[in-house]
Amino acid sequence: MKIIRVSLGKLSYPILIGKGIIKNLHSNLKKYLDLQNIIILTNPKIQKLYQKKINSIFKNKSTYHWLTIPEGENHKNLQTVEKLYHRLLALGANRKTGLIALGGGVIGDIAGFVAATYMRGIPYIQVPTTLLAQVDSSVGGKTGVDLPEGKNLVGSFYQPRFVLIDTDFLSTLPDREFLCGLSEVIKYGIIWDSVLFSFIEKNGKRILSHHPASLAKIIARSCEIKAHIVSRDEKEAGLRALLNFGHTLGHAVEALSGYQKIHHGEAVARGMVYATHLSSHLGLSTPQEVPRIKNLLEKIGLPTQLPSYLRNAYQRAVAKDKKSVGEKINFIALKKIGKVVIHPLTPQKIVQLI
Amino acid sequence: MKIIRVSLGKLSYPILIGKGIIKNLHSNLKKYLDLQNIIILTNPKIQKLYQKKINSIFKNKSTYHWLTIPEGENHKNLQTVEKLYHRLLALGANRKTGLIALGGGVIGDIAGFVAATYMRGIPYIQVPTTLLAQVDSSVGGKTGVDLPEGKNLVGSFYQPRFVLIDTDFLSTLPDREFLCGLSEVIKYGIIWDSVLFSFIEKNGKRILSHHPASLAKIIARSCEIKAHIVSRDEKEAGLRALLNFGHTLGHAVEALSGYQKIHHGEAVARGMVYATHLSSHLGLSTPQEVPRIKNLLEKIGLPTQLPSYLRNAYQRAVAKDKKSVGEKINFIALKKIGKVVIHPLTPQKIVQLI
Repeated sequence: MKIIRVSLGKLSYPILIGKGIIKNLHSNLKKYLDLQNIIILTNPKIQKLYQKKINSIFKNKSTYHWLTIPEGENHKNLQTVEKLYHRLLALGANRKTGLIALGGGVIGDIAGFVAATYMRGIPYIQVPTTLLAQVDSSVGGKTGVDLPEGKNLVGSFYQPRFVLIDTDFLSTLPDREFLCGLSEVIKYGIIWDSVLFSFIEKNGKRILSHHPASLAKIIARSCEIKAHIVSRDEKEAGLRALLNFGHTLGHAVEALSGYQKIHHGEAVARGMVYATHLSSHLGLSTPQEVPRIKNLLEKIGLPTQLPSYLRNAYQRAVAKDKKSVGEKINFIALKKIGKVVIHPLTPQKIVQLI
Repeated sequence: MKIIRVSLGKLSYPILIGKGIIKNLHSNLKKYLDLQNIIILTNPKIQKLYQKKINSIFKNKSTYHWLTIPEGENHKNLQTVEKLYHRLLALGANRKTGLIALGGGVIGDIAGFVAATYMRGIPYIQVPTTLLAQVDSSVGGKTGVDLPEGKNLVGSFYQPRFVLIDTDFLSTLPDREFLCGLSEVIKYGIIWDSVLFSFIEKNGKRILSHHPASLAKIIARSCEIKAHIVSRDEKEAGLRALLNFGHTLGHAVEALSGYQKIHHGEAVARGMVYATHLSSHLGLSTPQEVPRIKNLLEKIGLPTQLPSYLRNAYQRAVAKDKKSVGEKINFIALKKIGKVVIHPLTPQKIVQLI
């Protein structure tokens, strides 16, 4: 098992990564927290897959309850949050209750937000079951839900007490979701670590066949990079913005496609290729980075073309980005693989190559 | 003008206290923040009283909007919060928008919670207009709303960027609300500062007639004490619990009376007298503290008797307290005026003198 530390003063926490380590969930709860009881928040699909295993971990050891919410981003809203408050109260949850988020990004985001706001904060633990959640949303303390007007418009920064990443969860993950996670892993290579990028170039087939050591390696390195960035910038004042590479257009693609047909990782893959093109066009990077990034994403099986919406539609979608500062957007531009920079641009300039 | 600093590392902020200092609101916003626009959240009654004055402060200087919510604790709920999210989005509010809470505790609690959670946090400023909000809820970063099951069950710890306390706001405050604020001021004397307690004993009449220097003195001292306690314990790990003196029974009185007939400060006054009795009964303090505390509250015009509900009803209400740890409640007991201690007791023991 590998342990990565997210350093945030009193809010610091460990990320535990390994094959089959879910069996240590109870002992880690004992080690890191002082709880009276436990609530496991998940969806019915994940509950069905892992209920037996997790019941066997807690049985006769802890007071615990399962809570489920329906699967899908369309349930990531305030109505679900409010229902959960009532159910937590009915279960007698208090500040000595640990809320375990067992699932992908939707479960993690909702559980984190409920934990952040129920009784002004109760402890929560991330147990991400998708690759995307393992390398991205479970680390960093971003929690939140959607409003009809847009995604993640309500939320808070609230850190988990620890993150437990068992790579065995990926064995039940659909291929398409696995690829979406890889899109973010490749992003870490592009923004921070050319060695990670090269590793994926060389080991694409092994990774796609879930080779355990390769998986553990790329997950751990991704978490390390995210932990490093988050430790220096908990609340998006600067460095953390680099994580948005590919996301400005990626979010626009998701918004324009109505979040259904195109998944987050796919939208980000398309956005990263576009951002690479634009960086080269602006003279910030050399042109040869474009084919290298595009080729890797395609080899892995990710889409690289922006869907054909009107440039105006993209411009409006980009302008809505909540990280906007005045007229300009903090666009993340490529310098070279392993290095990106914040490059403020107007929405008009951002969409110029569409 | 007096400035008190709440020391919380990066989250530190000043409390500005003085007569007529609302006129410096705009210059302080410029000094402490870098904003694109301002939204003033208040209720229609306060807006009517102060709209003209505040418009004159901002006119031709800032982009600003008024937002109102209906008066009263029964609007301090998730439905109001959700409406505010939509209205903030419609106004284009983002992380460069400053949300000003202009009002009493209800406005401050809601504004703080909305600011804490809209786009994962936007800056907010407390401009409390009641004595209770000036000495209590505006300082310390507790934000939140009620659920049907109970008060403040949803919320977060989120610090304002500054607090501006203009004692002139108290001139339009109903007497009963003024007394409720004094109840908390007397609490600060009891828990922390016998000099403050003696000052109120000696200057009761001057304070009740809104003598400006006396008002500024007791408000500043109350804020200093709260700032000191909050600086050492942002999230209720220990020291902050002392602020709950009189609140265990006070909350029970509020819950049993349905929050309507009995106001918070009145409930706390009753709870403080009971807590003093119980402390003496348990041998933690000398009996002579009881008449001294009771006399001061009565002289000021506050109630000191618990309403006559059944002991069992009190016990159930006390047991619901969210700060409960296991079976025992962190009851705050008196040692002597100026000094209290955490004294865990079962609900049954707490209600033994009823």
